[in-house]
Amino acid sequence: MKNKVTTFTIESKPIPGSHKIYVQGSRPDLRVAMREIPLEDSRDENNNLVSNGSVVVYDTSGPYTDPGYTVDLTKGLPKIREKWIAERADTEKLPTLSSKYGQERLNDSALDGLRFPHQNTTPLVAKKGHTVTQLGYARRGIVTPEMEYVAIRENQKIEEVLGKYKAEKGEPFGANLPKLVTPEFVRDEIAAGRAILPANINHPESEPMIIGRNFLVKINANIGNSPTTSTINEEVEKAVWAIRWGSDTVMDLSTGENIHETREWIIRNSPVPIGTVPLYQALEKVNGKAQDLTWEIYRDTLIEQAQQGVDYFTIHAGLRKDFVRLTLNRLTGIVSRGGAIMAGWCMHHNRESFLWEHFADICDICAEYDVAISLGDGLRPGSIADSNDEAQFAELKALGELGKIASEKNVQVIIEGPGHVPMQKIKENMELELEYTNEAPFYTLGPLTTDIAPGYDHITSAIGGAMIGWYGTSMLCYVTRKEHLGLPNKEDVREGVITYKLAAHAADLAKGHAASYWRDYQMSKARYEFRWMDQFHLSLDPETAIKYHDETLPEDAYKRTHFCSMCGKDFCSMRVSRNLKKQLQKTGMDHACDIIPD
Amino acid sequence: MKNKVTTFTIESKPIPGSHKIYVQGSRPDLRVAMREIPLEDSRDENNNLVSNGSVVVYDTSGPYTDPGYTVDLTKGLPKIREKWIAERADTEKLPTLSSKYGQERLNDSALDGLRFPHQNTTPLVAKKGHTVTQLGYARRGIVTPEMEYVAIRENQKIEEVLGKYKAEKGEPFGANLPKLVTPEFVRDEIAAGRAILPANINHPESEPMIIGRNFLVKINANIGNSPTTSTINEEVEKAVWAIRWGSDTVMDLSTGENIHETREWIIRNSPVPIGTVPLYQALEKVNGKAQDLTWEIYRDTLIEQAQQGVDYFTIHAGLRKDFVRLTLNRLTGIVSRGGAIMAGWCMHHNRESFLWEHFADICDICAEYDVAISLGDGLRPGSIADSNDEAQFAELKALGELGKIASEKNVQVIIEGPGHVPMQKIKENMELELEYTNEAPFYTLGPLTTDIAPGYDHITSAIGGAMIGWYGTSMLCYVTRKEHLGLPNKEDVREGVITYKLAAHAADLAKGHAASYWRDYQMSKARYEFRWMDQFHLSLDPETAIKYHDETLPEDAYKRTHFCSMCGKDFCSMRVSRNLKKQLQKTGMDHACDIIPD
Repeated sequence: MKNKVTTFTIESKPIPGSHKIYVQGSRPDLRVAMREIPLEDSRDENNNLVSNGSVVVYDTSGPYTDPGYTVDLTKGLPKIREKWIAERADTEKLPTLSSKYGQERLNDSALDGLRFPHQNTTPLVAKKGHTVTQLGYARRGIVTPEMEYVAIRENQKIEEVLGKYKAEKGEPFGANLPKLVTPEFVRDEIAAGRAILPANINHPESEPMIIGRNFLVKINANIGNSPTTSTINEEVEKAVWAIRWGSDTVMDLSTGENIHETREWIIRNSPVPIGTVPLYQALEKVNGKAQDLTWEIYRDTLIEQAQQGVDYFTIHAGLRKDFVRLTLNRLTGIVSRGGAIMAGWCMHHNRESFLWEHFADICDICAEYDVAISLGDGLRPGSIADSNDEAQFAELKALGELGKIASEKNVQVIIEGPGHVPMQKIKENMELELEYTNEAPFYTLGPLTTDIAPGYDHITSAIGGAMIGWYGTSMLCYVTRKEHLGLPNKEDVREGVITYKLAAHAADLAKGHAASYWRDYQMSKARYEFRWMDQFHLSLDPETAIKYHDETLPEDAYKRTHFCSMCGKDFCSMRVSRNLKKQLQKTGMDHACDIIPD
Repeated sequence: MKNKVTTFTIESKPIPGSHKIYVQGSRPDLRVAMREIPLEDSRDENNNLVSNGSVVVYDTSGPYTDPGYTVDLTKGLPKIREKWIAERADTEKLPTLSSKYGQERLNDSALDGLRFPHQNTTPLVAKKGHTVTQLGYARRGIVTPEMEYVAIRENQKIEEVLGKYKAEKGEPFGANLPKLVTPEFVRDEIAAGRAILPANINHPESEPMIIGRNFLVKINANIGNSPTTSTINEEVEKAVWAIRWGSDTVMDLSTGENIHETREWIIRNSPVPIGTVPLYQALEKVNGKAQDLTWEIYRDTLIEQAQQGVDYFTIHAGLRKDFVRLTLNRLTGIVSRGGAIMAGWCMHHNRESFLWEHFADICDICAEYDVAISLGDGLRPGSIADSNDEAQFAELKALGELGKIASEKNVQVIIEGPGHVPMQKIKENMELELEYTNEAPFYTLGPLTTDIAPGYDHITSAIGGAMIGWYGTSMLCYVTRKEHLGLPNKEDVREGVITYKLAAHAADLAKGHAASYWRDYQMSKARYEFRWMDQFHLSLDPETAIKYHDETLPEDAYKRTHFCSMCGKDFCSMRVSRNLKKQLQKTGMDHACDIIPD
């Protein structure tokens, strides 16, 4: 069973009420995918039809939702960046996989049924003396096609509607949000280290995206099999499912069997950047015994994964030996898996972490493939009681120091953050992060604002996520309702992604992101005008919105009525208010007017 | 069918892993209901058992969850306040119901099958010249049994554990949270108008509770049939269900048939204060034609409901005629039902609102029964675009003026707030509320922090709710996932209540409420020590937590293991971290130690 990858169940129909569009960039092969939601017409006071146009939204779902694209997971996605990478003429093909483990897996015929059929065995690597990272290009003043893609993508065609509505004044806490993002702005933000564009040269299938405080807040969904196992098929299905609902990146946190093969399938079929925690796989290679981990095994794992196309690595290099003592009086000790492994390793060997000591070497490897580094917070607080403690902030400071090394090596870097933090202590996390890390993008897990809501931790954490996103966090890692309890199923993944999309969107609004207001504006206009289908289609999750509406009023006629089941006709305030307005426009404010005419 | 109240399905078994306790007050009949969660023992470094005691939590579920109590909905709940009210000797029994409508319903034999069997037809009223409101008593320096009940209840027996842990320093934004609440503190807060104790003299079944910025943040759940109808049974079941999960008050927003009889059933069986919007019923009495509303009909409705025992009325008296013009340029006009009705009435008659003009009369009625007034925000924003606008704040200021009148009449008063507000504009709502209303308790609906998440609006609004609760809101009105789409079912009500309990709790933590940290502390301690059953029992919703855990690892043995399905054994950071700590305690920090011993 487990040695054969069989049929996949990929959901690929377009999101209801919308279709894929491609916005043309400066070169024929630069076509930026977006999702357009056409709206119904309104009627003006004279009952004439007035067009509402459409709303264009950010689309992470990749070619899957394009009816013109034939899904074939055994072939993988089109390599949209292949030519761009080749044109730069600063990479070369390796004769074969250069990681020992990669070779072993390749030569193991028992894995033939599992292996991705078109595996690339001659990965790209930077030519000697060349810097192939987006950070390197940015610093040299180069605007890559990836950067242009990002600029167009971030704008969501808002240039066509700016001026048609008034965006609210935000409180950006120092973030600098241009009304229109230019490719040069993207370049400058990357060059400053305030944003990253994760784009491994061996993942040409990925659609460029950016993570930074001065752009839209992004979200990540975690997938991955566990020792209690799930199949390769299920993991690929989960990845495509997560991006369908809006996940900007996907982290493959597999810790079970065949994680090398699982990852290959995922990357080849992923239009979003893929992140991993290489330590998890390294630990598998030493049969779960953290003390047996070595730099050599870890190094081989980095190369193995970099050559597959992983776009960012979480690396817990900031957990120094001396910090372990700071956790001993904690209520919940170390709750990061990577953190616990490294703490164990340091104490067993009574020496400094090999990740800390070899960090420059790690950067050299990452630079060769443009793998971004996400500096893991191995000492993130696992409870309200441990939030913002000495251990946490000592590590954050160390992450800042490591960030400098990465930056010197032209490696893109982001910083991971907590965890469990009560609301009044969230802002301090953001402020110290900016201070300690020279404004590197912050990437947080929630934070969860209370410990007592297992089963509802997507919500507990969305509260903290929305707030820290507002304060300046660039990417939020989702938390599902199964957190602390078990593994999420497909519906939990959807709910987790949508919950985080709404938290990220709430943060964008609060920062004053002009384009973000447009969708809310159109949603509320549709609501006021009882354009039910438009309301559903403008929702983050149209399928669920329609389902809930139809639970009470399933008949099609009720999608055209000027009320809903919540209040019924006589009590519908919107209906009364609309009619009132219509009347007052005729009679003026100082005359009695009829109400509820209909 | 609809003319007979038949069998009820009331969930009355205790919440898993806990039991009802009663804390004795200063008099034999003052026994404060709480819920105690006994914890398993821990093992210390020498493997000796160490008791964790128990956690006592606030309990809104009433006698239902007491196995010693026999539920009989046709009899109603015990009248725990009856003697207290009688002892004050400032009330008298009316010979019969004095509202015209109340009499009509009483004498309509067609309703016999619907009517609550033991309806009280001789309600209490204040004796001439006597002030029977808790505000009146507080101002005269009297500590009522109700105030003592509240003090004991707010403390949750925290006096027994204070000092055993360190509560986090909060940011209370001017709130004054004593470590231990005394009856005198309760009295003084009520006297200052900073808190209300809703307790209609005709609702002696209610367990006293308090709503104020210097107490625990409370939540309200709305129930009520609608023109698309549900039965009396269903509404009573929903009310008991909502309080089971933690709703501090319940608003009966019925707008369909038989709402007088439905309300009687609900109040007689409700241990929490019941709120209503009398305007809804008044509108039913004029067949849905707002223009036909009169002060006389409204007045009769107030008396009808006050004599049944409604504890607080939402009254949209602040929506003055002149404010209607301020809504004309809004994106979504008026979205409050009461607001739309009153705006319609004002414009139709081209005159000032009768609620505004008769507000002193309204207060006189409320004072006779100690009905608190919740000043409704008829102009709350229904979209991000309309948030914090001139209409909204003009009305808020008017509510402050009305609050002064209520206060002069010794009527307890709270102020309702929005609505749809992006995060950066939430704080202004709280600040202006405190300024305009002399710090009257604020009672908000969410606010929703974005418009685009129908189907997930419990989350969108919990984000805003947690924040405004932190800033100083005293009570949060829940929003379910069906908001904007349809009517919530039973599971939606549970989820809405739990979502708001977690938002309120997050707010309490952020304010620095000492007792609130204790539950999180014990939860995280249990988590770190793999006491799975304790984790479930300390959850806001133990049933759901257990269900999710068991989805992956149903066997009983997995409730005793030192890992869970999320990471599996080798990757369990808590397990590694615990073992590490144990080892380091033996070997010290400067020696190599073994890890993962088990």
